[in-house]
Amino acid sequence: MGQPYEPDALPRLGSMPDLESGVDGPPDLTAVIPAGGAGTRLWPLSRAGSPKFLHDLTGGGRTLLQDTADRLRPLVSARVMVVTGERHADAVRAQLPDLDPDDLLVEPSPRDSMPAIGLAAAVLERRDPDAVLASFAADHVIGDLDVFADRVRQAVSAARDGWLVTLGITPTTPATGFGYIRVGAALGTEGAPDAHRVDAFVEKPDVARARDYLASGDHLWNAGMFVVRASVLLELLAQQHPEMTTVLRQIAEDPSRLADLWGSLPAVAIDHAVAEPAAAAGRVAVVPAPFRWDDVGDFASLADLLDESPLHPGLRVLGDPGLVVNQGATGLVVATGGRTVVTLGVPDLVVVDTPDVVLVTTREHAQDVKGVVATLRATGRGELT
Amino acid sequence: MGQPYEPDALPRLGSMPDLESGVDGPPDLTAVIPAGGAGTRLWPLSRAGSPKFLHDLTGGGRTLLQDTADRLRPLVSARVMVVTGERHADAVRAQLPDLDPDDLLVEPSPRDSMPAIGLAAAVLERRDPDAVLASFAADHVIGDLDVFADRVRQAVSAARDGWLVTLGITPTTPATGFGYIRVGAALGTEGAPDAHRVDAFVEKPDVARARDYLASGDHLWNAGMFVVRASVLLELLAQQHPEMTTVLRQIAEDPSRLADLWGSLPAVAIDHAVAEPAAAAGRVAVVPAPFRWDDVGDFASLADLLDESPLHPGLRVLGDPGLVVNQGATGLVVATGGRTVVTLGVPDLVVVDTPDVVLVTTREHAQDVKGVVATLRATGRGELT
Repeated sequence: MGQPYEPDALPRLGSMPDLESGVDGPPDLTAVIPAGGAGTRLWPLSRAGSPKFLHDLTGGGRTLLQDTADRLRPLVSARVMVVTGERHADAVRAQLPDLDPDDLLVEPSPRDSMPAIGLAAAVLERRDPDAVLASFAADHVIGDLDVFADRVRQAVSAARDGWLVTLGITPTTPATGFGYIRVGAALGTEGAPDAHRVDAFVEKPDVARARDYLASGDHLWNAGMFVVRASVLLELLAQQHPEMTTVLRQIAEDPSRLADLWGSLPAVAIDHAVAEPAAAAGRVAVVPAPFRWDDVGDFASLADLLDESPLHPGLRVLGDPGLVVNQGATGLVVATGGRTVVTLGVPDLVVVDTPDVVLVTTREHAQDVKGVVATLRATGRGELT
Repeated sequence: MGQPYEPDALPRLGSMPDLESGVDGPPDLTAVIPAGGAGTRLWPLSRAGSPKFLHDLTGGGRTLLQDTADRLRPLVSARVMVVTGERHADAVRAQLPDLDPDDLLVEPSPRDSMPAIGLAAAVLERRDPDAVLASFAADHVIGDLDVFADRVRQAVSAARDGWLVTLGITPTTPATGFGYIRVGAALGTEGAPDAHRVDAFVEKPDVARARDYLASGDHLWNAGMFVVRASVLLELLAQQHPEMTTVLRQIAEDPSRLADLWGSLPAVAIDHAVAEPAAAAGRVAVVPAPFRWDDVGDFASLADLLDESPLHPGLRVLGDPGLVVNQGATGLVVATGGRTVVTLGVPDLVVVDTPDVVLVTTREHAQDVKGVVATLRATGRGELT
């Protein structure tokens, strides 16, 4: 079964795609971008009606969704499919004007990741029985694009061999907010020198266990990135949820039935529906992904993503730095309300200024933002969220 | 020369005015309210164009100017005169609709307190050579109105005897932000049992000296409250600034000359122009004023003035408490921007939300707000101030 996994010191690069031309991706491969999210952890910047994938969170001029599509297009000959909710379909069309209308799948209601990715798989399987899909969330930030491209390419090679392949992020901290992937023996598949079997997906750990995982060197973060043949995904799904598989194929065959059938599907995550049982059955591979990755889980993460403002030493600024006046404060200012934001003397501050809400907290309390949103929804002020 | 000063335990009340009727004040007495201010210490709530006297800072529904007039009217048979700048004249008229147009003196340009109060004195002297004026700043908060009324009445009695009378606030802390008044021997004037001579006005002290002053029991805060016969004030002024006195009387005689002559007057405070030299000459009396008094010098003071919000334990809220969402923060929120203000986990916070600026700081840094305003003015963003 090949050699045991040893973590990379530096990534070994395979043949590199041309990131510029956008035409050299393998013809059987489609990128699938599930674009959903509740918009609570970066509230009030992101809202239920405007989740974080619709926002430029890096100050680079492109939204996370656009960045995700930009990153994937060169790897897939521009074949990109987006799955999103009705509420966000217009915004997705506006942000991705080149997206083929047939490649925008609109969910009538949120059903978590399995029905979303499963529907994409069913649609692609009808187009090409050998189609491979590479699914990446719309709201992650990824760096080291050459490494990313190499690892996706390896994952595609393994997927063509019938594996459900995930990319597992090389951990940099004993994070307790992610699930982990325990890496097994090397796969030995041609074109995928870094691919290994997955021993198991493990739940979000406590901090002691997270430290053990980090020290072990054989645990990776589960970032929900999957590369798999569409037919393999549906076959694995059928083993656990045969009815869902049937319904998804019915919708792919006759899209006019979407509205009627969608509501019958259970809301379930792809990890629970397919990845975990398939791993137990020895069907899942992982390609370690030693690139920079961030799911921008809160304002503290967002602050870490941004460079210090040249205009405002000590501050990270998202939005218009010309609106910010700082005297001795440090932290993050999101200046998207069109008003002047003055910060004075407070360390590790988080100020998020929007047209109708201003949030003031500190980085230490960044995770509590979710609770504020829950409180607002519970107290009849959900329209603000 | 009477008995040496001993601080009051409790105020001895003189005959009480009827605070309701507004008609029993002595007919020779006019309240003069200098309504000026740069609007920097409570920025961005107060602005150069809208200084703090135009704002309701106590949440009571009346502005500081209106509160000042309300407090004085019953003591002066409703004879109230306001001196303000051109920029604020319309706002003063709107806030004090009962003010006689002849009792609104409009300065063409700011010249500090001496020309403002001196002009009022010159106008009143022409109306009645024995007129007494009682000058109180438009932007102070005063409690214990019965005590206030008694001490003003005593001051008027002493003023009729020819004294320049000041009310000196009984200190409650070793404050370094105020000048002090060193109290001399009792005056022994009929109708003013608490009046004493002023030994000297002393400059703002350092903290060690302020502690000595507080411990001494014979130092009061100089709050810039003066009660004096108009003719006495002008006579004292003439000893120091004969030219200014002449010009002020010329303007009073022919108000059409105001615009031409005003610019020639030096900008000088009444303390330096008159009170200090007059004290050295033994012409100044003080009535100790053991009532609650606050000049709302910064947002920390403002927070102290306000009660904790019943809706938001730990927070003081000025503006609309319905706009505030708090989870674990303490301090002050000024919610006057029409937007929702969310505060999360930060202690002793100061958030001031206005339609075009939001300020975020802590009570500890409340005094630094002035510096931000200076920076804005120095960097071409004075329009925000």
